[in-house]
Amino acid sequence: MDNGPAPRTVAELGEFGVIERITRDRRASPAESIGPGDDAAVLAAPDGRVVVTTDMLVQDRHFRLDWSDPDDIGHKAIAQNAADIAAMGARVTGFVVALACPPDTTLDFVDRLNKGMSDEAARADGAIVGGDLVQAPILVISITAMGDLGDRAPVLRSGARPGDVVAVAGTLGRSDAGWAALRAGRRDLTDVIDAHRAPRPPYAAGITAADRGATAMSDVSDSLLADLGHIATASGVAIDVALSALADPVLDAAARELEADARQWVLTGGEDHALAATFPPDVALPEGWTTIGRVEAGAGVTVDGAAWSGNSGWQSFTV
Amino acid sequence: MDNGPAPRTVAELGEFGVIERITRDRRASPAESIGPGDDAAVLAAPDGRVVVTTDMLVQDRHFRLDWSDPDDIGHKAIAQNAADIAAMGARVTGFVVALACPPDTTLDFVDRLNKGMSDEAARADGAIVGGDLVQAPILVISITAMGDLGDRAPVLRSGARPGDVVAVAGTLGRSDAGWAALRAGRRDLTDVIDAHRAPRPPYAAGITAADRGATAMSDVSDSLLADLGHIATASGVAIDVALSALADPVLDAAARELEADARQWVLTGGEDHALAATFPPDVALPEGWTTIGRVEAGAGVTVDGAAWSGNSGWQSFTV
Repeated sequence: MDNGPAPRTVAELGEFGVIERITRDRRASPAESIGPGDDAAVLAAPDGRVVVTTDMLVQDRHFRLDWSDPDDIGHKAIAQNAADIAAMGARVTGFVVALACPPDTTLDFVDRLNKGMSDEAARADGAIVGGDLVQAPILVISITAMGDLGDRAPVLRSGARPGDVVAVAGTLGRSDAGWAALRAGRRDLTDVIDAHRAPRPPYAAGITAADRGATAMSDVSDSLLADLGHIATASGVAIDVALSALADPVLDAAARELEADARQWVLTGGEDHALAATFPPDVALPEGWTTIGRVEAGAGVTVDGAAWSGNSGWQSFTV
Repeated sequence: MDNGPAPRTVAELGEFGVIERITRDRRASPAESIGPGDDAAVLAAPDGRVVVTTDMLVQDRHFRLDWSDPDDIGHKAIAQNAADIAAMGARVTGFVVALACPPDTTLDFVDRLNKGMSDEAARADGAIVGGDLVQAPILVISITAMGDLGDRAPVLRSGARPGDVVAVAGTLGRSDAGWAALRAGRRDLTDVIDAHRAPRPPYAAGITAADRGATAMSDVSDSLLADLGHIATASGVAIDVALSALADPVLDAAARELEADARQWVLTGGEDHALAATFPPDVALPEGWTTIGRVEAGAGVTVDGAAWSGNSGWQSFTV
């Protein structure tokens, strides 16, 4: 019997066929009791509360198909959601993914996107437990992450107090440097380009920070200055950052190659999804955390005691 | 002091301004302990499990701006997610909403969309507890709903047994009839057009069905035949539907006006988001549920004992 050529695009295989294909060899989350295939999934929430966040990525706005491989896009989409869960001091339990794509999207693209998402979900100790697949003229990936607090109090942006230490876990500015390298056509600067394509947030550091008594925490998605600004505003405090604590030889090397200012990347670049937190002054910082500044009475964020000139990071609907 | 003209579009007000505007007078969900404004929200999950589902709506694919008001689009987007929670026998606790829109989207549009979503969320006893707002060339609304099982076992599609009664709660086919009326330019057929624009699923009926021992349940989003087909396949049974039990005077009236076949709407139309469930034969159906058929040994779905000719309902990526 001749079944004709194997399907090559999502339109040829159809919605249900694509869903069957990408869920067939799925690794389950340890937290799931009902996975894909019913009206909804069921995840454990042993704490009696669930932490939830959502982020959407739009083609040509948050990623470019000529600059990122599909698996990198998948990594990035999951990472930015999982980082928000970690920033509350919670552990990821699972993700749901809504994907819109043009009918001529290849099954190879979907397979690789799904692999990137699944691998990063596993890095965060979770899995994709449900989703939706629809047609649109451009690719849109919308992800919701869920997490469990494990009897910890959620670490909010509003708890920083004057005298607290400001610290970060993970890299800063490398994603922005990678974007600059791509725009400059410098595909040889792989350290920073890889950071842009597929950030690797330090999820476990969010939980250790919560356990060590972090007073406030956020992931760095807009920029260090912008996200510390959110903490400062929510907490009613000022934050001063020490530039010398933010030195990164990888950024310095890229800055030399691109004749750019590494300080601008580290302060105003987003999308590395590092974690920034404040700790009481007497606390020994957990492993992976580095002191970068101090909480003071007042308002706003300063760098070495002065306002930073220049833009302060990403906002939607700006050009 | 002259601040210039008031902002009129999302680009003029900016991402953070729009979020502040639509969350300012937000009604909180009884289940939320942390709402919008931090890295993630925190919802109660008293059962120790959380039910989660996601659905995405794309402009010109799932709604048309010239056929639906923004508040109707909002109702529909929330309703289709909340119906999936109800179909598991769970109660909605909250929603997160990711919205992509063009920069020239008016604030009036966003306000009305948000009002429709918030009103329908309240109808389901929940609220929008978080979200994301991004730029895209078309409108895309991606919603994730969470719910609590209240110590009930989730009602899956796989539990139907031969001898069970098949029943529905809510209307069938009216959304599809409304779509036909709109395509025919018959805006006077408001009963069915309203059903198309803003379905009103019977959320509470999902919980009463679970309490009464429903063996399988699904919302009717693709079509009655397709969604009963999912139950039949998952349960390894056959289902026979009695056409006489599906009569609806509202559909009959619309069918006469449009010279259409009401049976086609009721059997193959989706998007009313009624609930379909199977019950043990000795159970007295809860209020709001109507018997429409019977579970038998075998496979597939029949109508009055025979296969239904014609298409069986919605799939993405079909023309």
